[in-house]
Amino acid sequence: MTNTQVTLVQIDNYGPWTVTPTPRREADLQTLQSRLYADISQFVGNRGGYVFFTRFDNMIAVTNGLSMDDHALLQESVGNRYPVTLSLGVATGTDPVQALADATQRIQDAGSAQDDDRRECLEGRTVDEPHRTDADVQIAHFDVINATGNYTDELNAFDTFIEIEQGYAELMGHMRHAHDSLSFFVGGDNIIVVCPDIETAAYEEAIAHVEETVDVKLQVGVGRGEDAHVAGYGAKHALETCRADGTRVELEWET
Amino acid sequence: MTNTQVTLVQIDNYGPWTVTPTPRREADLQTLQSRLYADISQFVGNRGGYVFFTRFDNMIAVTNGLSMDDHALLQESVGNRYPVTLSLGVATGTDPVQALADATQRIQDAGSAQDDDRRECLEGRTVDEPHRTDADVQIAHFDVINATGNYTDELNAFDTFIEIEQGYAELMGHMRHAHDSLSFFVGGDNIIVVCPDIETAAYEEAIAHVEETVDVKLQVGVGRGEDAHVAGYGAKHALETCRADGTRVELEWET
Amino acid sequence: MTNTQVTLVQIDNYGPWTVTPTPRREADLQTLQSRLYADISQFVGNRGGYVFFTRFDNMIAVTNGLSMDDHALLQESVGNRYPVTLSLGVATGTDPVQALADATQRIQDAGSAQDDDRRECLEGRTVDEPHRTDADVQIAHFDVINATGNYTDELNAFDTFIEIEQGYAELMGHMRHAHDSLSFFVGGDNIIVVCPDIETAAYEEAIAHVEETVDVKLQVGVGRGEDAHVAGYGAKHALETCRADGTRVELEWET
Amino acid sequence: MTNTQVTLVQIDNYGPWTVTPTPRREADLQTLQSRLYADISQFVGNRGGYVFFTRFDNMIAVTNGLSMDDHALLQESVGNRYPVTLSLGVATGTDPVQALADATQRIQDAGSAQDDDRRECLEGRTVDEPHRTDADVQIAHFDVINATGNYTDELNAFDTFIEIEQGYAELMGHMRHAHDSLSFFVGGDNIIVVCPDIETAAYEEAIAHVEETVDVKLQVGVGRGEDAHVAGYGAKHALETCRADGTRVELEWET
Repeated sequence: MTNTQVTLVQIDNYGPWTVTPTPRREADLQTLQSRLYADISQFVGNRGGYVFFTRFDNMIAVTNGLSMDDHALLQESVGNRYPVTLSLGVATGTDPVQALADATQRIQDAGSAQDDDRRECLEGRTVDEPHRTDADVQIAHFDVINATGNYTDELNAFDTFIEIEQGYAELMGHMRHAHDSLSFFVGGDNIIVVCPDIETAAYEEAIAHVEETVDVKLQVGVGRGEDAHVAGYGAKHALETCRADGTRVELEWET
Repeated sequence: MTNTQVTLVQIDNYGPWTVTPTPRREADLQTLQSRLYADISQFVGNRGGYVFFTRFDNMIAVTNGLSMDDHALLQESVGNRYPVTLSLGVATGTDPVQALADATQRIQDAGSAQDDDRRECLEGRTVDEPHRTDADVQIAHFDVINATGNYTDELNAFDTFIEIEQGYAELMGHMRHAHDSLSFFVGGDNIIVVCPDIETAAYEEAIAHVEETVDVKLQVGVGRGEDAHVAGYGAKHALETCRADGTRVELEWET
Repeated sequence: MTNTQVTLVQIDNYGPWTVTPTPRREADLQTLQSRLYADISQFVGNRGGYVFFTRFDNMIAVTNGLSMDDHALLQESVGNRYPVTLSLGVATGTDPVQALADATQRIQDAGSAQDDDRRECLEGRTVDEPHRTDADVQIAHFDVINATGNYTDELNAFDTFIEIEQGYAELMGHMRHAHDSLSFFVGGDNIIVVCPDIETAAYEEAIAHVEETVDVKLQVGVGRGEDAHVAGYGAKHALETCRADGTRVELEWET
Repeated sequence: MTNTQVTLVQIDNYGPWTVTPTPRREADLQTLQSRLYADISQFVGNRGGYVFFTRFDNMIAVTNGLSMDDHALLQESVGNRYPVTLSLGVATGTDPVQALADATQRIQDAGSAQDDDRRECLEGRTVDEPHRTDADVQIAHFDVINATGNYTDELNAFDTFIEIEQGYAELMGHMRHAHDSLSFFVGGDNIIVVCPDIETAAYEEAIAHVEETVDVKLQVGVGRGEDAHVAGYGAKHALETCRADGTRVELEWET
């Protein structure tokens, strides 16, 4: 049974800030957002977590292994180095969607994302050390079969991007509603999915659904672990098996 | 008549690199990608261009005002500071999709994205200074009406993200096929679109299409200029007018 | 009694790399060096350590609280994101200079700094958790009395810099030879010194020495703790007391 | 005859900010400073300039080729992405020390470095395009002969650092007072010096002075150009000649 710890990272009052007193240069906003994401990725990532850029002003992280003190330190460090601040909501559960909903609720209860008085809120609870297990996190790593040969080297770069995006959009909606999972595009043709305790049949069904609906052929490796890094690393290795053997679904714990 | 200069930025042989000799830590890949994008955004952005992260291993830029020497310098600087290198294809035209197709073709002609021998290719041509005009670039900046009130403060963060993504996926496909335009999600609820010379009716039609198809309500400001920054800045100001006046489409040159 | 854990961070074969195949752009080298330092500062710093840029290709860190696994992770993460790699030597002791000498020796034993075959060496040992105490690290934070009023707002920026540098050069040599301490300029008019277990008289003597020799007037706050952050934070607070009260030496544990 | 354009970059009111409301984490300050420097190095560097970190809160740049508009854009971009702002003073002249003095004066006239009301001041003037020549900037690049063999691989890392620092401190003072030049340590065993129009005898004299005074053996390559990059690149190539031929002073324009 998984017990995923999910953190919602929300930049405080970001929309209004981007146009105050007049609209700020887009290139600076893009730089600020992507560097802030990169910093959070390093902080969370070198403690075993994963963070996804999502909308950049709202990022979603899997943070098993990070304490509330770790979260507070991240918040302090960003506050010291950026012109914006972060609010963080943390929650846990067997269902990643429900955990995220709880994490979101904690931040929403503290005030609106565009409430100038709600700054650096830090709410929620983590999985305590004695209750952690090596099956707390399940990660699936999907990619598009032969994306370079079929798309990147053949279509113009935007039409390739449309294909990848369509595959992602279809998978993200399906995995969320059919399998209570959170799917994130992570660049290239890669999608990382935070899952509850689901098995091969679910992944096969999802792959078939995406292929039927938008004609994008996916393969997936799945891993489990005490944190996102361990689970995700297992998933990457399992995906290498797909690539080597031509299989479509590989569970790392069955190989 | 627009004359958009488009650059395709492709990381050389990136997919294989990410798993050599074994898969690299995901957090490091995410950090590398987003910081590389941030650096390119600064370089291009402070010369008046826009770059979009797209798939991160393939980024698309509007580079009116940047010479081939500027492109070579970017390539050299990245090669000096990162463990990966860039290939760049540049092309121009009245139709941004066609310009991108030409830019892509130049890189594809030099070799596969996963060809270990194709490194730091730099191909194409720019708009020469004497031929530049203040109508070369047309940028539309869309956002979702009251996204914070309707989504961010109401739904869980992933369901909000699904709504935004659906709006984006629908708009991107429609603008590409109906209006020869390139649409990019840039964070929050913002989508920036690189357009040929199209007018109010086209934007109204696109907004209606997205609303009918996926029930996401968009508004848009549009600007023109000699480069992406000037056009995009006009678009931002026009979008502020939408927000202030409750209008759905504002062309900066008509206000 | 202090028990300082010192890490020498050395970029492998850096000098030759900077001129291969021809000299690389200086601005890119400066950017690479300072960003690498910043990344290490975040990694070490959010685990309670301090790292000093020193010569940039050789950095010195106080790493009490970081395990050998933490060091290995830093090494892996840098190797994944930079075109250069790091070797790390770790040692501990009551005398920071001796600890650094031991850490240096471990790296030198593995090969020359410009040996192409010596890459990512990781050698040494850390203070084990059960042996850590809240007096393991002693940090002194010096600054120049009224540097802004006496120098920055009065002299040209280079002559101010010469004054600060002279004060630093004199302090660094004196603290090393008279008090077995490692002194690092950290920007502005601030010098942070990693000390063994020394008391007020030693600091007063050092301040008098610098004032007599180069006529630069220093004040200092000193802190102790289980790691560099705690000790350094105590030192900063003690220095605030100097500023408020006009005293020259404040030991945080005596206030 | 040189005509060096010098910019003083000063973080506004930085000292007070670092301790407001209480002292900020040192690792965050170090990260902020070095990343800000890196960003400025990229901006200035990819326009042909050099910037030196100096005290980090006060940086000195050679900016031939950058207009006042470029300076304003740097200021705006930093203001959009950092929690601190910059003031910039610009001046030109045949004597780099005098040019820096003029640049400093312009900022000092606008208010104290710790004046909360003096923010983002931008003062001074640049070398206009028609007056630029390919002898405007003269750069000397010094390093320590066989620093790796004599120091890095032999002494502990701090004692090596002391040797390098002593060489630098001695050179910096001598070049400033005897030759109106600005010397900057740039990492490793490298010192870059911004010079007026001086010749071989001056460099030989300086090398002899440092060797006699602190027993550090230097060699130097010197270049000239329309901007710091061209001059500095010539200097690097000339220094490679020293390394290859065992000479102590090489002027790039005489080889």
